[in-house]
Amino acid sequence: MIKPYFPPRPGEPPPLCGSVERRVRFEEVDALGIVWHGRYAGYAEEGRMAVCRNHGIGYLDLYRQGLLTPIKALHIDFHHPLRFDEEFRIEARLHYTEAARINFSCSIVNAEGRVCTTGYSVQLMLDAQGEQLLLPPPGYREFLARWQAQHAA
Amino acid sequence: MIKPYFPPRPGEPPPLCGSVERRVRFEEVDALGIVWHGRYAGYAEEGRMAVCRNHGIGYLDLYRQGLLTPIKALHIDFHHPLRFDEEFRIEARLHYTEAARINFSCSIVNAEGRVCTTGYSVQLMLDAQGEQLLLPPPGYREFLARWQAQHAA
Amino acid sequence: MIKPYFPPRPGEPPPLCGSVERRVRFEEVDALGIVWHGRYAGYAEEGRMAVCRNHGIGYLDLYRQGLLTPIKALHIDFHHPLRFDEEFRIEARLHYTEAARINFSCSIVNAEGRVCTTGYSVQLMLDAQGEQLLLPPPGYREFLARWQAQHAA
Amino acid sequence: MIKPYFPPRPGEPPPLCGSVERRVRFEEVDALGIVWHGRYAGYAEEGRMAVCRNHGIGYLDLYRQGLLTPIKALHIDFHHPLRFDEEFRIEARLHYTEAARINFSCSIVNAEGRVCTTGYSVQLMLDAQGEQLLLPPPGYREFLARWQAQHAA
Repeated sequence: MIKPYFPPRPGEPPPLCGSVERRVRFEEVDALGIVWHGRYAGYAEEGRMAVCRNHGIGYLDLYRQGLLTPIKALHIDFHHPLRFDEEFRIEARLHYTEAARINFSCSIVNAEGRVCTTGYSVQLMLDAQGEQLLLPPPGYREFLARWQAQHAA
Repeated sequence: MIKPYFPPRPGEPPPLCGSVERRVRFEEVDALGIVWHGRYAGYAEEGRMAVCRNHGIGYLDLYRQGLLTPIKALHIDFHHPLRFDEEFRIEARLHYTEAARINFSCSIVNAEGRVCTTGYSVQLMLDAQGEQLLLPPPGYREFLARWQAQHAA
Repeated sequence: MIKPYFPPRPGEPPPLCGSVERRVRFEEVDALGIVWHGRYAGYAEEGRMAVCRNHGIGYLDLYRQGLLTPIKALHIDFHHPLRFDEEFRIEARLHYTEAARINFSCSIVNAEGRVCTTGYSVQLMLDAQGEQLLLPPPGYREFLARWQAQHAA
Repeated sequence: MIKPYFPPRPGEPPPLCGSVERRVRFEEVDALGIVWHGRYAGYAEEGRMAVCRNHGIGYLDLYRQGLLTPIKALHIDFHHPLRFDEEFRIEARLHYTEAARINFSCSIVNAEGRVCTTGYSVQLMLDAQGEQLLLPPPGYREFLARWQAQHAA
């Protein structure tokens, strides 16, 4: 079993999800005929984008509001390879936290339902001057409140 | 013999050159064990940067002066593959022209001196509003004049 | 108007087509906020794969039959940029020829129907020893005959 | 201070090192003008190759002996961004272990000596059938013995 990277704490709502269906492209495969391990950083980013689209979080909106969200940490665990032209699904999850950070986890699942890769990323929240925020900005706190409320409903 | 992409016209100075010594990285190789054909666009860009560094042309300087130089055309001819960990040299040439464009050609040469790939790119000169220039901007015309003068000397 | 790279000759059937709907990913965009020019080699490859899937040409089947089809030439013309998160369509076409080569052309079209990029590739047919074929192998000649016959019908 | 990923245990020799001097290429930079976070997987791989070259470990030799060493885990911590055309150094370290795994750590250091990124990777040792080894193969155990002996000397 794959252990959760961000186990939920009591009272916190479950993660918000998004997924992408893809096929391995020739240029993503290495000399051993499997997806080169570094490509999974891009797959995880596709997954994060899908979560944002599903739940009305605009990457560019945050940026225009002067919020920078650089990646602070990226972790990937490899369980099983993907091969050229294989179909797979990227499943991404945004985990609830009231801290000034954005925690995503991600699983890559092949057509037989086997979990090939899992991983997580942590993003910081910085203001336009690059200073780390102590709390999420007001717009994001409202988003968290709606998330919490919908779960409680 | 490999035919020249931009044959010099009478009275024009020879091209300005630059080169980079590299080794094929694992992530650049495809499932057949050779450099994936699309990676050569990046090799050509490394070559263009080397010419610019050698001859005092700052990519960012042009950009700060409000000159945009988007790629209009890219062409690559493949003669012989490169393999993982193989050493090679990127040889790039900036060709003289008084038109508002930037013409580069490039050769990839392996350790035995064999020409593996050749190609060219054409870049347009646009102003900050994206309008195509009819003539190169004054700073670039001075650069062309110095190039011509050094050749004549 | 964009001129055709492989104008059809009298009596030849029209090209076989395939297309892919995509969205620009963050990692594909450069410091100017537009898709980096070298990424289009990968888009063209996605287009070629779609043509092959549509018309029952297996990349790996050819390979298993001892036929190598390396890229000999790649050309890309850039007309208009694509930006982050923009939706676009890759339209690829396999052009009929009885020579021992594979000619594809490709167009990238944005959501407003504007043609952003066009290009072509030429692939050679080599046997397992790397020798260039004078004629396509029997299996491919049958494929050409069916293509011709369906057009005439 | 950056904490070590693989702190040495008493009696174990210090890591074997390798480094690469590089410059940020245009295609590696994202829309924010900094190196896209996923590119660091490739930088770490360049570092691992440098360690191997320095210390006579042939990637392909291991492969020819039937030893597969897939990446099991990759972790990257981001401290400070790198920008276009910036010079930097990749410092990689192979950490001593008698287990059937290969542990590397890596630091990316900019021209001012600032540590921009740190990370680690864990590789498994599998036989040609893909079964995990309980001990490193004989050739690798001899390598470990020489490493230990040179340290003790």
